[in-house]
Amino acid sequence: MQSLYTVDVSRTPHETRLRVRYAETDQMGVVHHANYLIWMEVARVDWCEARGFQYRDMEREEGVFLAVVETSCRHLRPARFDDQICVRSVVEEANSRIAKFAYEIFRVTGQELLATGFTKHVYVNNQMQRSRLPEKYRELFGVGSSEPARTT
Amino acid sequence: MQSLYTVDVSRTPHETRLRVRYAETDQMGVVHHANYLIWMEVARVDWCEARGFQYRDMEREEGVFLAVVETSCRHLRPARFDDQICVRSVVEEANSRIAKFAYEIFRVTGQELLATGFTKHVYVNNQMQRSRLPEKYRELFGVGSSEPARTT
Amino acid sequence: MQSLYTVDVSRTPHETRLRVRYAETDQMGVVHHANYLIWMEVARVDWCEARGFQYRDMEREEGVFLAVVETSCRHLRPARFDDQICVRSVVEEANSRIAKFAYEIFRVTGQELLATGFTKHVYVNNQMQRSRLPEKYRELFGVGSSEPARTT
Amino acid sequence: MQSLYTVDVSRTPHETRLRVRYAETDQMGVVHHANYLIWMEVARVDWCEARGFQYRDMEREEGVFLAVVETSCRHLRPARFDDQICVRSVVEEANSRIAKFAYEIFRVTGQELLATGFTKHVYVNNQMQRSRLPEKYRELFGVGSSEPARTT
Repeated sequence: MQSLYTVDVSRTPHETRLRVRYAETDQMGVVHHANYLIWMEVARVDWCEARGFQYRDMEREEGVFLAVVETSCRHLRPARFDDQICVRSVVEEANSRIAKFAYEIFRVTGQELLATGFTKHVYVNNQMQRSRLPEKYRELFGVGSSEPARTT
Repeated sequence: MQSLYTVDVSRTPHETRLRVRYAETDQMGVVHHANYLIWMEVARVDWCEARGFQYRDMEREEGVFLAVVETSCRHLRPARFDDQICVRSVVEEANSRIAKFAYEIFRVTGQELLATGFTKHVYVNNQMQRSRLPEKYRELFGVGSSEPARTT
Repeated sequence: MQSLYTVDVSRTPHETRLRVRYAETDQMGVVHHANYLIWMEVARVDWCEARGFQYRDMEREEGVFLAVVETSCRHLRPARFDDQICVRSVVEEANSRIAKFAYEIFRVTGQELLATGFTKHVYVNNQMQRSRLPEKYRELFGVGSSEPARTT
Repeated sequence: MQSLYTVDVSRTPHETRLRVRYAETDQMGVVHHANYLIWMEVARVDWCEARGFQYRDMEREEGVFLAVVETSCRHLRPARFDDQICVRSVVEEANSRIAKFAYEIFRVTGQELLATGFTKHVYVNNQMQRSRLPEKYRELFGVGSSEPARTT
């Protein structure tokens, strides 16, 4: 059975702060929408660190990569150059095969919600073939041990 | 009444070709997913040109901007450096307030479908306030004249 | 005469920290070289803040933009994903017409020098026409009051 | 002795066309300067193709990468969204260890020179260690066979 502790931690939103870069704006005078996906990625890496591991090490040491299979983003208000941004990220779904992160992106000043979105991921090896989340990371992602073992 | 001709043209998929840039790859050895949104944008600008106008002119001359309010992308196979890419774009919904484009992204070699997605847009002025598609562009987007006139 | 205080402050290197983003890597497994220019830009904005003003306000309130006229970067060692980076920036030359920033980019771990470079800038208005650094910013950039007043 | 033919071809400027993407602009209303380095890279890849090989194959088949060790760019006029751009590239220096490309970047309309620059490169293996240009590519880069053989 999945421990309550694991559930709490992995499902608790993690907050990541960043500042809008000039290069992230476009001639509409606001942040170009593609950058929100990059901010979500920065937040995922930071989420991993907050859970106690480096995503970098998962790639380097385990040869396991978190490949993106779906992205979605709704834009409510534009972010602007130099804004302080907070990305709130949470794992919404996780098993040994997939992970889904959800995000809320705020402007720190005024706590205005700028965008919401999600990304879905599968684990792949360095040949981009489907793989599974290594055992040692499962509790961190909130993947319960009740999940039946399956052969790869 | 909307002419049949308008319907046909605006709803016909338009194909845009591009080549994967080195800078678009990441250390996973494949194209970083944020670039697909940029390719969709390249395809939209090209779609406008194929319909007979420059998106640039809509911004410059009319002060009307096509702001992104939602993006979605599903990734089936990775694109790789130097791949020839074809983005097939079509307007799925259009009225004087919003436009929705749908996309299919292929690798030209083998005609492999790499990704599908959509983007939703609203028309805004240069203050990022909601605006309407100028009359002269409506037929091009397949917006029927049967749409009742509303005040802004 | 230029005050000693102004000279000291504007010529003192300022340090800006950042973390390498996944999207900044390319398939060589290292940071793509174009990102170093973006890091220099982040450092310039941070330099302004350390000097006591927001670059954003110079654009918004004065209508003065710091346009790039030259960039140069030498790469000694590659930066890698998730590295902690320190950009040391200093104004090397400044008058009412131009500013030149020089940079040293380090990996925080091991204090390894990764790159050095510079950027040259001119002041322009929102029509991209040459302008001059507003009076109120001159001391902050270390521009001496001894510089003869010239008409624009 | 180096053949005259080789000299001519490798030193002849090659022209690459591209179109400014919306995402390449920033809130100054012009192309962000970091993109010029990416355009130079697009031009290098295209230069290779014009010389008769794919840079991609040099990486894949030979395990040899053209790593950037220096970049320089002078900006004369801004490029703008949707501009047709021509990048004229030429190999200025080449031996088995290094290559230097020089570039002139034009707006096709009016043939206005927007920027000039160069990039210097060394050959590295997939561990980012110095390597040499494989024999089969030397004539293509205009590297004379008169260059004395040296041990790696």
